Amino acid sequence: MIGHGFMGAAHSQGWRVAPRFFDLPLEPEMAVVVGRSAAGVEASARKWGWTESATDWREVVARDDIDVVDIVTPGDTHAEIAIAALEAGKHVLCEKPLANTVAEAEAMNQAATSAAERGVRSMVGFTYRRVPAATFARDLVAAGRIGEVRQVRAEYLQDWLMDAEAPLTWRLKKEHAGSGALGDIGAHAVDLTEFITGQHLTSVSGIIETLVKERPLLGEGVGLSGTASAERGEVTVDDIALFTGRLDSGALASFEATRFRTGRKNALRIEIAGSTGAIAFDLERMNELEFYDATQPGLELGFRRILVTEHDHPYLAPWWPTGHMLGYEHGFSHQVRDFVTAIDEGSAPRPSFADGLHVQRVLDSVERSSAAGSVWTPIAG
Amino acid sequence: MIGHGFMGAAHSQGWRVAPRFFDLPLEPEMAVVVGRSAAGVEASARKWGWTESATDWREVVARDDIDVVDIVTPGDTHAEIAIAALEAGKHVLCEKPLANTVAEAEAMNQAATSAAERGVRSMVGFTYRRVPAATFARDLVAAGRIGEVRQVRAEYLQDWLMDAEAPLTWRLKKEHAGSGALGDIGAHAVDLTEFITGQHLTSVSGIIETLVKERPLLGEGVGLSGTASAERGEVTVDDIALFTGRLDSGALASFEATRFRTGRKNALRIEIAGSTGAIAFDLERMNELEFYDATQPGLELGFRRILVTEHDHPYLAPWWPTGHMLGYEHGFSHQVRDFVTAIDEGSAPRPSFADGLHVQRVLDSVERSSAAGSVWTPIAG
Amino acid sequence: MIGHGFMGAAHSQGWRVAPRFFDLPLEPEMAVVVGRSAAGVEASARKWGWTESATDWREVVARDDIDVVDIVTPGDTHAEIAIAALEAGKHVLCEKPLANTVAEAEAMNQAATSAAERGVRSMVGFTYRRVPAATFARDLVAAGRIGEVRQVRAEYLQDWLMDAEAPLTWRLKKEHAGSGALGDIGAHAVDLTEFITGQHLTSVSGIIETLVKERPLLGEGVGLSGTASAERGEVTVDDIALFTGRLDSGALASFEATRFRTGRKNALRIEIAGSTGAIAFDLERMNELEFYDATQPGLELGFRRILVTEHDHPYLAPWWPTGHMLGYEHGFSHQVRDFVTAIDEGSAPRPSFADGLHVQRVLDSVERSSAAGSVWTPIAG
Amino acid sequence: MIGHGFMGAAHSQGWRVAPRFFDLPLEPEMAVVVGRSAAGVEASARKWGWTESATDWREVVARDDIDVVDIVTPGDTHAEIAIAALEAGKHVLCEKPLANTVAEAEAMNQAATSAAERGVRSMVGFTYRRVPAATFARDLVAAGRIGEVRQVRAEYLQDWLMDAEAPLTWRLKKEHAGSGALGDIGAHAVDLTEFITGQHLTSVSGIIETLVKERPLLGEGVGLSGTASAERGEVTVDDIALFTGRLDSGALASFEATRFRTGRKNALRIEIAGSTGAIAFDLERMNELEFYDATQPGLELGFRRILVTEHDHPYLAPWWPTGHMLGYEHGFSHQVRDFVTAIDEGSAPRPSFADGLHVQRVLDSVERSSAAGSVWTPIAG
Repeated sequence: MIGHGFMGAAHSQGWRVAPRFFDLPLEPEMAVVVGRSAAGVEASARKWGWTESATDWREVVARDDIDVVDIVTPGDTHAEIAIAALEAGKHVLCEKPLANTVAEAEAMNQAATSAAERGVRSMVGFTYRRVPAATFARDLVAAGRIGEVRQVRAEYLQDWLMDAEAPLTWRLKKEHAGSGALGDIGAHAVDLTEFITGQHLTSVSGIIETLVKERPLLGEGVGLSGTASAERGEVTVDDIALFTGRLDSGALASFEATRFRTGRKNALRIEIAGSTGAIAFDLERMNELEFYDATQPGLELGFRRILVTEHDHPYLAPWWPTGHMLGYEHGFSHQVRDFVTAIDEGSAPRPSFADGLHVQRVLDSVERSSAAGSVWTPIAG
Repeated sequence: MIGHGFMGAAHSQGWRVAPRFFDLPLEPEMAVVVGRSAAGVEASARKWGWTESATDWREVVARDDIDVVDIVTPGDTHAEIAIAALEAGKHVLCEKPLANTVAEAEAMNQAATSAAERGVRSMVGFTYRRVPAATFARDLVAAGRIGEVRQVRAEYLQDWLMDAEAPLTWRLKKEHAGSGALGDIGAHAVDLTEFITGQHLTSVSGIIETLVKERPLLGEGVGLSGTASAERGEVTVDDIALFTGRLDSGALASFEATRFRTGRKNALRIEIAGSTGAIAFDLERMNELEFYDATQPGLELGFRRILVTEHDHPYLAPWWPTGHMLGYEHGFSHQVRDFVTAIDEGSAPRPSFADGLHVQRVLDSVERSSAAGSVWTPIAG
Repeated sequence: MIGHGFMGAAHSQGWRVAPRFFDLPLEPEMAVVVGRSAAGVEASARKWGWTESATDWREVVARDDIDVVDIVTPGDTHAEIAIAALEAGKHVLCEKPLANTVAEAEAMNQAATSAAERGVRSMVGFTYRRVPAATFARDLVAAGRIGEVRQVRAEYLQDWLMDAEAPLTWRLKKEHAGSGALGDIGAHAVDLTEFITGQHLTSVSGIIETLVKERPLLGEGVGLSGTASAERGEVTVDDIALFTGRLDSGALASFEATRFRTGRKNALRIEIAGSTGAIAFDLERMNELEFYDATQPGLELGFRRILVTEHDHPYLAPWWPTGHMLGYEHGFSHQVRDFVTAIDEGSAPRPSFADGLHVQRVLDSVERSSAAGSVWTPIAG
Repeated sequence: MIGHGFMGAAHSQGWRVAPRFFDLPLEPEMAVVVGRSAAGVEASARKWGWTESATDWREVVARDDIDVVDIVTPGDTHAEIAIAALEAGKHVLCEKPLANTVAEAEAMNQAATSAAERGVRSMVGFTYRRVPAATFARDLVAAGRIGEVRQVRAEYLQDWLMDAEAPLTWRLKKEHAGSGALGDIGAHAVDLTEFITGQHLTSVSGIIETLVKERPLLGEGVGLSGTASAERGEVTVDDIALFTGRLDSGALASFEATRFRTGRKNALRIEIAGSTGAIAFDLERMNELEFYDATQPGLELGFRRILVTEHDHPYLAPWWPTGHMLGYEHGFSHQVRDFVTAIDEGSAPRPSFADGLHVQRVLDSVERSSAAGSVWTPIAG
C-alpha cells in the first residue's frame, strides 16, 4: 500500500477484515506500507498491521513478492505510481479520483488496458458503490423495479469549510487535489449516478465557485488537525459545484457538491425517479434505502424505508443478523472481496480505470462549462 | 351548542365548513350558543357565527326550533345536559369523554338507547377517528392488509405540564375533569385502538400517577392563559397513566398517556403489529400513515410513508389536490358530515354513547387496577 | 371573486374563515362570484356561500358596492381583469403567477402603482409565504439566526404528470398557463427563496424541458378529472425546470421544479445554509421547520424539528393549542387577514404586484437562458 | 474465547480491530478459541484468526499463558465457566445476560468480588452502552442537560418470530436461554435505562407472554438457518414482555421487549424525559441521538438530530472523519478498549458482574410479577 493517511487506515481495515468474513479465493497478506517519512510510515505499519514499511515506492513496486499495489496517496501522484505498478505486472487498486487531470487519467487507462491483456487487473476506489444499500439500488433499477429513468438528483453535502478560518490544507490547493468539492465529493455523486442508472453522462452545464478565497496557511501539524498560521494563502479549488447533466437516455440529472451546506456532514444523497417507481439514498443513513413502487395499489403508495440488512441483500451474508448496522469501513472490505475475487477469476473488476477516466472527463467538462458561462459542454470519449 | 371554550371554536368550525365541502343531505343552521356569562357567550356567538346566544341551556334544549344539541362543556355537566336533550327529542353530539364517571355514562347510554327507539340519534366526539389517516388505518386492518392483530402500542404524549409552576386549571381537578391524562388523552388512545382494530379491551393492568401534587391557584384570567396566584392547591388528577390491556382476541395492547413527555406536543401515536403487516400513525404527522406490508418481496420490506391525501382516501374527495394537507379542525367537519348523514338516513352514528360508556369503563378499570397495585382488572359490560 | 375553480374554493374558505379567528378591522362580505357558465357559477356561489353569482366580470368590477376584487382565473386573463379593477378603484388580490408574460405583469404593476397613489391596494397570492413555518423561517433569517446566507436549495417536486396518458389540460398549454412546472410551481420556489432570504435573484442559468411532448386531448369533463379522448395534442409547456441563480449578495441558489419526481406529491422544499446556521422546510410537513443553530456546543449540533404550532409563532395565536396542526387552506385565511389589515391601515401589502412582476422576470430569464444553451442571463428591473 | 457462535464473530472482531484504532496499554493476543466440536471450532479459529482451537474449556482456563477469558456461550454455561476462570485468576469478559438465574448470577458476582480483591477483573457484555450515541446520552444526562429524569420509555422491538413456523432453536427453550425476549433483548433495555439515567429500578409490575406456544423442532442444521422438522415442541420462553418499573428517584419507566413487532428489526429505543430536556435514541439509527433542550428560546424548541460522529464524541477520536458512520461491531472494539484499559489500570470495569446480577434480578422480578397477576414486585439487593 502506497500512502498512509486517513484512506490508508480505511484500506488497511478492508484488507484486514475482508478475509475474516468473506470466503476469499486468495489470502491477502499485508506486506508493505510506503510513505515519505520513515518514522511516520513505520508507525503506521505497526499500528495497521503491515509487516514492513518503506519510503521508496519504486523499489516496492519492483519487488517480486508483491502482487497487488494499493494506492492511497493524493491524486497528483496516482498516475506515476499506477502506471509503474501496472507495467511491473502488479494488480492495482487506486483511490479515487483516478487522477487530477484528464491527460493523466488517459495515460493510466491506457496502461490498464495494456496490462489487462497480460492478465493484470486494475480498479478505482469508488467505495460507495459497495455500500449495500447503493448496490441494492442498482439491482432494483437493473431489475426494472422503477421502470425507465426519468430524472436524477444527486448531491454530496458537507459543511466542514463553513469556518472561514479553517486552514489551507492540501485539499484546497489545485496542484495537489485537482479540484475541490467537485473532484473530492462531486466525483462520488457522478459515479453513483452512473453506477445505479447504468448510464453515462454525455454533456453538462454548470458552475463551480470558491466562497472563501483566502485561508490561513497551515502552521504546525498536518491535515485537518493542523493549526493555522497568521499568514494567508489562496484557495485554488472550488467550494461548491452545481451542474446539470444529460444521460445517454436523454434524462436530466442535477448535481450539487458542496462543503458549505451548514449542518450536513456527509450527505451523499441520490434520488432517481422512474416511470414506475423511485429510489432515494442518503449516506448519512447508509443502512437504509427508500423505495417507491408506483405499481402498488393507488391508496397505498409511499416511499418505504428498507433496512438493507437482510442476509440476502448485497454483501450482507457474512455479517450480522437482520437489523444490525454496517458502517463506513465495511465498503472497503467489500472492495477487497470484489477485487481479490476478480484477480482470482481473471475477470475485469469495476469500477475500472476506464470508469475512473470517464468521471474525470465529466469533472473536466464541468470546469470548462463553468469557465464558459455554464454553456452545455460535451463529455469526451 | 352548549359550551364555548376551545372545543366550541372547533365544533363551530365543523358546522360552518362541512356544508361548504360535503354535499350534506340536510343544511345545518348555527342557531344558538349557550354559556354561563351573557357577555362572554354573546361575544362567542358573534365571533363564531351563531345566530343567537343564551345562558340557560334548559330553555334552549326545550325549544321546538332546535333539532340538534352539541355539548362541548366540561365532562361533569355532560350527563345532565345530554339526558335532558335526548328526552326532549334532540339529536345529541357530545364531546368526549362521555362523562366523568361510569354511573353517569351508563345513565347517558340508557337515555341514548331509549331515544334511539324514537329515532333520536346520539354520538360522542372521538374526532381523531375521523382524521383520514386513522380512518384509512382502520380500513386497511378491516381489509385484512395486516392479518391478525398480534400487538398494539398506543400512546398520547404531551408536555404542557412539565413546568411545575403551571397553574391549577379545571383540567387538574377531579371534580371537573374526571381524570387527568388518563381521561383527557388516554381516552383517545383507547378509542383509536378499538376503532382501528375493531376489538374491545376486556381487562387492564396499570398505574396512574401525579408527578406535581400542588400547583399555584389560578389568579386572574381563565384557562391556560390564566395567571398564577401565590396560593397553591392540590392537583387531584393523574399526570401519567401507563397501562396494559387485553383485547377480545387475546392480543396485548400497551398504553401511555402523559403530560410530562418533554418535547412531545400532541403525539397521539398508535402502532399495530399484525401477522402479515403493520401500521403506524402519529398525530403530529397527521396526514401520513406508515404501512408495512409483510407480503412484499423479502428484500423490499419496509415501512412506507403514505401521504393520506389522495382523492379516494377517506373524507378526502371534496378537499384539495393530492399532497395538500389537512389540519386539526378538519376532523370536526368530518364529524358533522357523518352525524348529519346518520340523522338523515336514520342510521346509528358511531362512536355511539355505548362506545363512550365502554371507554369510560376502561378508564375506570385502569384507576381501580392502579389503586389495587396494578392487578389485572376486568372491564365491565 | 372572479373565477371559481379549485383556487376559488380555497379563496372562499379564506374569506369565510379568517373573520372567525382573526380580529379583522373590517368585516368582509362574500358578495359575488363570477364565472363564464351561469349554471356553474351559480352552483359555486351556493356551495361556497357567495350571495350572488354573475357571468360578466366587467359589470361586477364596475359595481359601487364592490370594494375588493379577488382574481382566481387562469393566468392569461389576470392582466385585463386586474387593471380594470384597479382603475375602477377596487382593491385587488390576484392569484399567482401575476401574469403569463412580463409585458402583462409590467402593465399590471404600473396600474397597481397608479392605484396605490389613490389608496387602492393590490397583492399577489403567493400563499405559501403565509404558512407559519415559512414565515417563521423568514423571521429567523431576518433576526440573524443563521448569519449570512451562503447557499440556497429550493425545489418543488410533484409527480402528477408521470402518467404519459394523463390528458392535455389547460395547464399544459402555453397560451393559457404561460409556462408549465416553471411558472406553476417553480414560481413558488423563487418567491419563497426571495421572501425568506430577503434578497433578489439577479441572474440565472437553466434549462426547461418537456418530457412527454404529446398527450391525449381532453374529452368530456374538465380539469384533472376530465376523461381523455383518442386524439392527441402537443404539450407546449415544460415538465421540468432546473436552474441556478445568483442572489444580491452573490450567494448561489439552485432550483428544481418538476411534475415528474415519482413519489413526491407536493414537496415544496427549501434549505438555506448560512454562516451560523441553516433552516430547512418541506411543504409535505408544513407544520414543521428544521433549524440548525451552529452556535450551539460542538457536540450538540443538529437539525432540530420545530413544530411551528406555538401560540407565539406567526399567525398561530387564534388557532388551536400547541401541537395541533394547520392545513393547506389556512394560508388563505392568513392572506385575507393581512390583505384586509393593509386595506384598513392604508399600508402596502406584500407580495406586491412589483414582487409578482419580479418573479415573472425570473421565469422569463430562465426560459431565455434555456433557449440560449443555459448561458447566464440577467434578470431585468 | 469460550464459544464460537455469532457472538464469537463479534467478539473476535473486537479483539482484532481495537488495537488497530485505539492506543491500548496492553497488546491482546488472540490465543485460543474453545468449542464442543473439534472440527467446528478449528474452522472458527482459522476464520477469525485465533492461534489455536480447543474443545475442553477447563484445560484452557487452567493454562498459564492465558490471561483473559471471554465467554460467549449460551447463558446456562456462563456461571460454571466464569467462576472457574476467575478462580484461576483470569480476567473475565462474559456476554450478557450474566446468567440464566439469579442464583447463578449471585454466585458469579461473589466470585468476581473475591477475584477483584486479588486484582482479577470481570465485566459483562452489555455492548450497547458503548454505542457512541448511547454513551453520549449518558454524558448529557450526567451533565444535567435534561435536568431531573421525569419519565423513561425503553423498548426493544424485533419481528423475527412473526412466522409461526420458525423453528424451535435453543433461544426458545428456557433451560438454555433462561428467558425469551425478556432476557435476550429486554435485558438491554433495562441496562441502557440504568446506564443512561444513572439510576436503578427498585420494583416492577409486568406481564410476559408466549404468542406461539409450539414450533417445529429443528431438523438438520443449527441456529436460525436450521431447517424445520415435522415434529413440534413447546416454546418455553416468552415472546413479549411488557413491564413498568420505578427508579430510585421515584420516576416511572415503561418497557417493552418483543419479537413480534412486525417490521421492526432491531429497534432498541429509549426516550428519557427530564425537567429541562429529553433525549431519544434508536439503535436502527445508531449514529444519531435526538436531543431536546427545553432551555432554548420558546419558539425554537425541537428535537435535534445529532450525528454522533464528531472527533470529540465518545470513542470517536480514532475512527473516521465527521459524518462517517460506525456499525454494530464497533461496540465490541470499544468494549475491548475499556476492558483492557481497566486491566492495565487496575480499575473496576463496568458493567460489572454486580451490574449484571442486578439486571438478572430485574428480569426475575418481572417474571414473578407476571406470574402473580402483574402486582408490583420489589427488586432484591
